[in-house]
Amino acid sequence: MSSKVRAARSRSESILVTTEHEGKRSRRPDELIVEEPMTVQLDGVTVSTTMRTPGHDFELAVGFCHTEGLLAVTGGEAVPVSGVRYCATGSAVGSEFNVVTVETGGRAPAPRPRLGNTTSSCGLCGNDAIDQLCDRLSPLPTSAPIPLAVLQAVPAAVRDTQALFEVTGSVHAAAAFSADGTVLLTREDVGRHNAVDKVIGRMLLDGQLPATGLGLFVSGRASFELVQKAWAAGFSTLIAVSAPTALAVHTARRAGLVLAGFVRSDRLNVYSPARL
Amino acid sequence: MSSKVRAARSRSESILVTTEHEGKRSRRPDELIVEEPMTVQLDGVTVSTTMRTPGHDFELAVGFCHTEGLLAVTGGEAVPVSGVRYCATGSAVGSEFNVVTVETGGRAPAPRPRLGNTTSSCGLCGNDAIDQLCDRLSPLPTSAPIPLAVLQAVPAAVRDTQALFEVTGSVHAAAAFSADGTVLLTREDVGRHNAVDKVIGRMLLDGQLPATGLGLFVSGRASFELVQKAWAAGFSTLIAVSAPTALAVHTARRAGLVLAGFVRSDRLNVYSPARL
Repeated sequence: MSSKVRAARSRSESILVTTEHEGKRSRRPDELIVEEPMTVQLDGVTVSTTMRTPGHDFELAVGFCHTEGLLAVTGGEAVPVSGVRYCATGSAVGSEFNVVTVETGGRAPAPRPRLGNTTSSCGLCGNDAIDQLCDRLSPLPTSAPIPLAVLQAVPAAVRDTQALFEVTGSVHAAAAFSADGTVLLTREDVGRHNAVDKVIGRMLLDGQLPATGLGLFVSGRASFELVQKAWAAGFSTLIAVSAPTALAVHTARRAGLVLAGFVRSDRLNVYSPARL
Repeated sequence: MSSKVRAARSRSESILVTTEHEGKRSRRPDELIVEEPMTVQLDGVTVSTTMRTPGHDFELAVGFCHTEGLLAVTGGEAVPVSGVRYCATGSAVGSEFNVVTVETGGRAPAPRPRLGNTTSSCGLCGNDAIDQLCDRLSPLPTSAPIPLAVLQAVPAAVRDTQALFEVTGSVHAAAAFSADGTVLLTREDVGRHNAVDKVIGRMLLDGQLPATGLGLFVSGRASFELVQKAWAAGFSTLIAVSAPTALAVHTARRAGLVLAGFVRSDRLNVYSPARL
């Protein structure tokens, strides 16, 4: 295995660092999170390039396509994924593990403009893009709310599964959990949205979507994009270690998604629904 | 002023939240950070849509165009910005403050593919995009290093200027500081990259770039994109409250940018240069 391949498959990298602590200087190896670009293609058409931590790349590609609505056809049905593979025709030496193609045999609709990739003029601005993303999603089905005490225990349970955080001290995590608080699946990535896409991609590949009745945990803040991804995957609950944004709260209320923030073992804030 | 305009100009929003603390439930208003999409146009062509906190929108648009290399012509010269304005021709009611056009009288080169917006096939994958971004930048000029003790004092000094963090408890900040640790300029945003672009955009509009000899502070982690933006603006030093990624370290060393992480009043880690 070449060093390039090893690097592509490694998720942290040891780098010598100079530490100054209370005036004393020392040199020691520090384990840093790996960050590399990955391009996602759908039926051979490039739909995004994201900075991600290598690993679970197929899940990331499939999850991204699903949560961005790229696999959705009219009526809410999702086009089945027939294959996922690394691009073997890349011209750049060593980049063969940084391009992933999701295949649907051409059955996926043509990619639409997305946030960060909007190409038309004022006629389609960011507000319209948000409405387009949300309009294709139906409000979530009602399911029995997960008890708040169960939600409060989830961050500690997920913490035990954050292997890369243990090594680097700085990487985001997302996890799916059941109504009794059991952690079903954890993924870690330099980007919060990537960690979420990896969880959702794994569940899609395993035929476990929509995630009705399940909860999604994110280690940082809850932004609009994370709420939209949780909604797209059909989760009933989203909990975050930090704060949500105002738009995240409005979107969660529109979706019928339970949204809690600042979740700790002895407390949490419920932002959606508006009234418990 | 309509409520829509007020909302567009407000940076935090009060939302009623249900708090559960040690088993006791209460309802109270919580101040959440506002997150709205903003589309950036260059000479009328849309180049990006980003989720941002409203405020300092012109700085964000100009800073984004600069750090993404959209204003650069061959030889390293930057095309002057002749104007910045909100788009008044948007079709969507109420979105007039979410589209900003940067004008150069058509002198800016045609926008190139960027990270997150790559449209060609394998021939230009993410690795190539990174090389393209960096290849146009020269190594930074040597300047006297800022003493580590000065760097250690910066986070506390910036903290005093984080007005929005004071209100919401959850928002990123970027700040420019001088070689003696004086905070020159602070910007806050839901996105770290936006906060950095706002600082750099303000300095560009004030004729203060390149930022040779100055330092840039970021409140979170130091990713590749933040190092690349600091490099593009000519900062000599970048300090982060949390960890850098491995690619951020490699890029900083290539740039000749001093990069420190986990900066606290009594300690810090220096990742670049490789040896002090």
